[in-house]
Amino acid sequence: MRTVFWDYETDEFKMIDQRRLPGSFEVLAYRDYQSVAQAITDMVVRGAPAIGAAAGFGLALAARESAASSATDLLADLEAASRVLKAARPTAVNLAWALDRIMQSVSPSPPGSPIGALREGARGEGESAASIRHKVLEEAQRIADEDVEINKRMAGHGAALIDDGDTIIHHCNTGALATVDWGTALGVIHTAWEQGKKIHVLVDETRPRLQGARLTAWELEQYGIPYDLISDNMAGHFLKTGQAQKCFVGSDRTAANGDVANKIGTYMLALAAHDNNVPFYPVVPTSTIDLSLAHGGLIPIEERNPEEVLGLEFEGERVAPVEAQARNIAFDVTPARLVTAIVTENGVVYPPFDVNLPKVVK
Amino acid sequence: MRTVFWDYETDEFKMIDQRRLPGSFEVLAYRDYQSVAQAITDMVVRGAPAIGAAAGFGLALAARESAASSATDLLADLEAASRVLKAARPTAVNLAWALDRIMQSVSPSPPGSPIGALREGARGEGESAASIRHKVLEEAQRIADEDVEINKRMAGHGAALIDDGDTIIHHCNTGALATVDWGTALGVIHTAWEQGKKIHVLVDETRPRLQGARLTAWELEQYGIPYDLISDNMAGHFLKTGQAQKCFVGSDRTAANGDVANKIGTYMLALAAHDNNVPFYPVVPTSTIDLSLAHGGLIPIEERNPEEVLGLEFEGERVAPVEAQARNIAFDVTPARLVTAIVTENGVVYPPFDVNLPKVVK
Repeated sequence: MRTVFWDYETDEFKMIDQRRLPGSFEVLAYRDYQSVAQAITDMVVRGAPAIGAAAGFGLALAARESAASSATDLLADLEAASRVLKAARPTAVNLAWALDRIMQSVSPSPPGSPIGALREGARGEGESAASIRHKVLEEAQRIADEDVEINKRMAGHGAALIDDGDTIIHHCNTGALATVDWGTALGVIHTAWEQGKKIHVLVDETRPRLQGARLTAWELEQYGIPYDLISDNMAGHFLKTGQAQKCFVGSDRTAANGDVANKIGTYMLALAAHDNNVPFYPVVPTSTIDLSLAHGGLIPIEERNPEEVLGLEFEGERVAPVEAQARNIAFDVTPARLVTAIVTENGVVYPPFDVNLPKVVK
Repeated sequence: MRTVFWDYETDEFKMIDQRRLPGSFEVLAYRDYQSVAQAITDMVVRGAPAIGAAAGFGLALAARESAASSATDLLADLEAASRVLKAARPTAVNLAWALDRIMQSVSPSPPGSPIGALREGARGEGESAASIRHKVLEEAQRIADEDVEINKRMAGHGAALIDDGDTIIHHCNTGALATVDWGTALGVIHTAWEQGKKIHVLVDETRPRLQGARLTAWELEQYGIPYDLISDNMAGHFLKTGQAQKCFVGSDRTAANGDVANKIGTYMLALAAHDNNVPFYPVVPTSTIDLSLAHGGLIPIEERNPEEVLGLEFEGERVAPVEAQARNIAFDVTPARLVTAIVTENGVVYPPFDVNLPKVVK
């Protein structure tokens, strides 16, 4: 089963509820795009590639929901739905990438351009609303299918960087659950394991939402790959004492110069890897690379509800004082100077990234 | 009220139960040294200076418990109790320091020397078992009293490093609860606040035992000092975006070259401070400096029960899969090259530490 998928029997969009794992495995069904946007905000689905695919299927729901009978009116409704879906989370670029790609597939105008031109009949007479509805779902499905294929190619490139016997530090969740299937960084690790390499994974629990403890540990259990959970702040000790040989992480947006925005804590992990000459590899589908941003300082960083920091419990009791205040920064930017190489579906990219990244982005 | 103290009315040793804070404030009473050793292991009390004082009072309980009527037999019992207390936790040097100091105060032999010499009458005829019992408690009380006085002096030296308007990142708990009273790094922050400096504290929650979220947040609430709780892995983002001007931490043992062993996560915080030219200050009573160790690689690092990593809950549910394995490293070593200066009760020590640390250690 895929993490996000269109169910052609019930004609619904469905997602694994990642907030309930590993305690229970539930699949939720969606019939309107507003609920999909809310689910992205609430992190029913997370992980940049999975969010992109979910937004695409959300747009397919919007196309079905729209009462428009003309192509022009339908495209206006889709533009509105696209704006709502894009606003669900700010950092991952795949969200906008997937939506823009679908809008482009149904419109000769560049995305975001005034739809007035359409109203004036720029659109060909042959393009019916029904045909657009069909094309939106088709393109969303294509994005989802391509994600799996891209992940397998990335995994092949990345697994070649892993040696037999390696202990690998992994941050957040970048597995099948972060994508449509197979995963990015965890897909690399999974492929290396399937190639017969004896590896061990140190899983950053990844505060505050604990995607490592919840999701990556659960996935590794399914695959039978040996691992130990650690708190994020232990990674430095393992690196400094020679107990870890590689770091693999994902990315929510990579700038043109190779600065990598990823789940909070990635920057401190990269510092510790660099301080101990341990290779640090983001695994990044090219849909995540944003060549329009010169450097990582331009990437919008989401701040979320402090309750995600404050709500933690031990033995049934809340830990922090009831009056406590908190900050909850969801992502950070790792400067390119700390990045050994970036694994993409089109090959492993080494510095200088500003020269070499454009070569792999179509 | 002090964190650890001898109650002369009930003739018991008492400690605030730090495992129960901030949910409930409980004081536990101890009448035997084995229970004190267990309480140190279980972290009823934690923080290097508080552990040292607790072990001292534990030895006073051992002196009272012993049925020995001769000085020689009593000293043998005390040596045995000291070994048990020293084994309670390995990393903080104050534990051994306090016990050795008390043993020296009642014995002309160097600590750890064969007690056979005593049996052969090396001890003066005038030294009775009763007198030794009295001296042990007296010296334990002196260590506790000195701790408070030392902390106030450190706080004075350290507060001079804090500027009006500073945002300070703090790791673990180093306040009144980590010491007999007032604290080390948090004592510095408290003193700066009392001097009228407008400061803000970013409190690392400090996984896995969450001393920051439990104890430091609670202390700052008591003092009225403004703070925000953050997960440890967010510190890098705040440093990189210019939102923090200083870092203050404690230490469980500092080697002769200035390498600092402290609560897990300190090394990664120091890396992030260094990468952004933010001063990083360990606040370290000289009892915590171990000149017998040339560098931090020689400091024993405690590994604790994985359940401290695995047992975390959200909304009443355990987060990690039930089958999950974990590692739980309690301390790490921050290399001296990342340390701006070390604050001691005898002044602020700058590099080169191997030259300057011996000057402040009596």
